[in-house]
Amino acid sequence: MKFIHTSDWHLGRQFHSVSLIADQRAVLAQLVAFIEDNPVDAVIVAGDIYDRSVPPTIAIELLNQIINQICGTLKTPMILIPGNHDGAERLGFGAGQMKNAGLHIISDFDQMLEPVILESPSAGEVAFYGIPYSDPETVRAAFQTSVSTHDEAHQLLTQKVREQVSPTQKQVLLSHCFVDGAIESESERPLSIGGSDRVSHEHFVDFDYVALGHLHQPQYKGAAHIRYSGSLMKYSFSEQYHKKGFTLVELNHDGFVSAEQVELTAPHEMRILEGELNTILEQGKTDPQHHDYLLVRLTDKHAILNPMEKLRTVYPNVLHLEKPGMLIGIEQAMAPARLARSEIDMFRDFFVEVQDNELSAEQDRAISDIINQLTRQ
Amino acid sequence: MKFIHTSDWHLGRQFHSVSLIADQRAVLAQLVAFIEDNPVDAVIVAGDIYDRSVPPTIAIELLNQIINQICGTLKTPMILIPGNHDGAERLGFGAGQMKNAGLHIISDFDQMLEPVILESPSAGEVAFYGIPYSDPETVRAAFQTSVSTHDEAHQLLTQKVREQVSPTQKQVLLSHCFVDGAIESESERPLSIGGSDRVSHEHFVDFDYVALGHLHQPQYKGAAHIRYSGSLMKYSFSEQYHKKGFTLVELNHDGFVSAEQVELTAPHEMRILEGELNTILEQGKTDPQHHDYLLVRLTDKHAILNPMEKLRTVYPNVLHLEKPGMLIGIEQAMAPARLARSEIDMFRDFFVEVQDNELSAEQDRAISDIINQLTRQ
Repeated sequence: MKFIHTSDWHLGRQFHSVSLIADQRAVLAQLVAFIEDNPVDAVIVAGDIYDRSVPPTIAIELLNQIINQICGTLKTPMILIPGNHDGAERLGFGAGQMKNAGLHIISDFDQMLEPVILESPSAGEVAFYGIPYSDPETVRAAFQTSVSTHDEAHQLLTQKVREQVSPTQKQVLLSHCFVDGAIESESERPLSIGGSDRVSHEHFVDFDYVALGHLHQPQYKGAAHIRYSGSLMKYSFSEQYHKKGFTLVELNHDGFVSAEQVELTAPHEMRILEGELNTILEQGKTDPQHHDYLLVRLTDKHAILNPMEKLRTVYPNVLHLEKPGMLIGIEQAMAPARLARSEIDMFRDFFVEVQDNELSAEQDRAISDIINQLTRQ
Repeated sequence: MKFIHTSDWHLGRQFHSVSLIADQRAVLAQLVAFIEDNPVDAVIVAGDIYDRSVPPTIAIELLNQIINQICGTLKTPMILIPGNHDGAERLGFGAGQMKNAGLHIISDFDQMLEPVILESPSAGEVAFYGIPYSDPETVRAAFQTSVSTHDEAHQLLTQKVREQVSPTQKQVLLSHCFVDGAIESESERPLSIGGSDRVSHEHFVDFDYVALGHLHQPQYKGAAHIRYSGSLMKYSFSEQYHKKGFTLVELNHDGFVSAEQVELTAPHEMRILEGELNTILEQGKTDPQHHDYLLVRLTDKHAILNPMEKLRTVYPNVLHLEKPGMLIGIEQAMAPARLARSEIDMFRDFFVEVQDNELSAEQDRAISDIINQLTRQ
C-alpha cells in the first residue's frame, strides 16, 4: 500500500502582508498531478490545513477544489485531522455526510476511535486513526481525567487508540504535535504558552506508521516510521534551504517499508539576499528568479534614500529589508560626542543620494555649523 | 410525495444582544421530532440557514447536529440553498462529497442546473432545483449578460432551469428572493440598497411548487403553490402575532395538492407589553410566560427610577424598554417656557421614587428656586 502523507498547508496564510494563495494553489496542483501519474491508496493530511480557525473564503474554495480533484475525480480517499491552526468544529462540518465519498475529517474523539479502513493486496487491511489536535484542557474535560501536559494527553489518547486496534490490521496514526527533540522552524506557532508542548515519541513506536504534523521541516524522530512530512511550502525566510513537499509512504504485510520525500516547488521561492545595495541591484538585472519573495539584508554602512523602492525595480517581491550596516552606525551614534559628526555624515550621504554630487566645502561648512548649533542647545 | 419546506433559520442570530441558539435548538428539535412521527420524503431549506456569512462555531455545530439527525439517523434527504445572509462558498464546502449521504447544498450555478431527483409512488420522479441566492452583479458576471435587477436575474435563472426540466418529472424550485407584493417583516435585511429587490411571481407559475425563503411571514403570492414557509421563529417584536413553523407540502402525479402550515413553538415567545409600570409588575407576578423575551412600552407620564431593574424582578427577559408617555413629557418640555416647570416635575417624581414621600412645601420651594435660578441664566 502506498499513501501520501502531507501536513501544514496553512491555506489562506499571508506572508509579510502578501497572500500566498496563488503559490499554495500551484503547489497543490503539483500534488494532484503527482497522484494522477502515480496513483496512491490514500492522501492523509496531518493538520493545519487552514492557517486559522476562521479561514478566508478563498482558502475554503481552494480546499474544496483540491478535495473535488483528489476524492472526486481521482477517487482517492483523503483523511484529515485539524491542527492547532484549524477550528475543529468548522473543519468537521458535514464530516458524517462526507465519509461515503471518501473524505474523512476526523474532528472529535468519537471519530478518533473509528478508524478509516483501507485495503490493498500488498498490505491487507490498514486502519487509519487520527487524533484531532486538542490541548490538555480539552482532553481532561472529555475524558474526565487528570492530564495536564501535552505529553500526558498523548499518552492517554494513543492508549485509547491502541485499545481499538485489531491485530489483523496494519495501524497508521495521524497526529498534530511536537515530538520532543525534533527540529522547529520559525513559522510554527507554539502549542503551549508557558507549559511544555513536547510529547515523547515513545507513544508512537507500536504503530506501523505515524504521520505527524506541526513542525515545518521534514524529519523523523525516534524511528524512521515516526515522521513529519513538513509544510507544503516555505513559510519563513529561515526555511530558505528546506526542501518542501510531501512524504510517499509504503507499507506491506510486515508493516513499514519506506518513506520517500517528494519535492514540490512554489512559483516564488523564499530567499535571503545579503550584500551592498549596488551589488544586489546589479545581480538582480540577470537573476532568473527575480520574482522570488525576498528578505534583503543591506550591508552598506552609509544612509540610503528609498532602498526598498530601488530594490523593487529589479526584485519586485522584496518583502522585508534589514540594514545591519546602518544599525552599527546608529549604535555608534549613541555616544553623544559622536552625534554631531554622525548627523553630518548622514546628511552628506543624503545629499549624494539626492543630488548625485558631493557637498562643496562651503556647503559642508554651512550644514556642519547648523548641526553643531542645534546639538549644542 | 410529502416534503417539508422551511427557511430563514438564521442560526447564530442575536436578539438585543441575547443569543437565540438555545431557542433555535429547541425549535429544530421539534422539527426533527415531527419527522420522526411523520416521515417525509425530503426537507428543503430555502436559504438564510445561518444569520451571517461567517457564522459562530456554535451555529455550525447546531446545523451539523440537525443534519446528522435528519440525513443520518432519519435517512431523510435535505436540500439547502444559501440565502442573502449565508456565505455560499462557506456553506457549499464539501457539497460534492455530501450528495451521496442525502445532503444537497446547492451553492453555485452549475449545481443549480443539476436537479436532485427523488421518487415516490404517489408523485413519481420529482426534480428539485435550487437557485443559490445571488445579486444581479453575480448573475451578470456568471452568464455574461446584461441583467441589472433582481427581477431580470430571476427571469434568466428560472429560464435556465426551465431549459433543463423533463416533462416526465414534477418540478420543485427553491429560491431566496422578495416576490413583488408579498408582505415583509421587520427582521429581514433588504436584498438591495437603492435598487429594486422585487421579483415577479410570473417566473414561478410553471413549477409544481416553489419553496421561497427571505420573507419571515408564512404566505403565498400569485398562486397557492408559490409560497414562503416563513422563518423558523420570531426574529422581531413586530412578529408577535405571527405563527412560525414550517410548510408541509404534498405533491401527486398531477402536481401540487396541498401546503399545510405546521406550528413550532419557541421556549421564549417574543411579546410586546404596554401599560403602566405598576400594572405590568402586578400581572407579571402570575404570568406563566414571564420568561418570554419582552419589549415593554411604559405609558406612565411621570419619571421612573430604574424601570428596567424593576421590570426584570418579574420579567427577567425584558430586552427593550420604550417610554412613550415620558417622551410626550420631553416634547412638551421643548417649549422653553415650560422647561423650568417640567424639570421641577421631574425632580418631584424622582423624589417620590427615591424617598417614597412627596416633597414638603418648603423643599418644593427650595428646589423650584434653584431650578429657576439655573434656567434664567
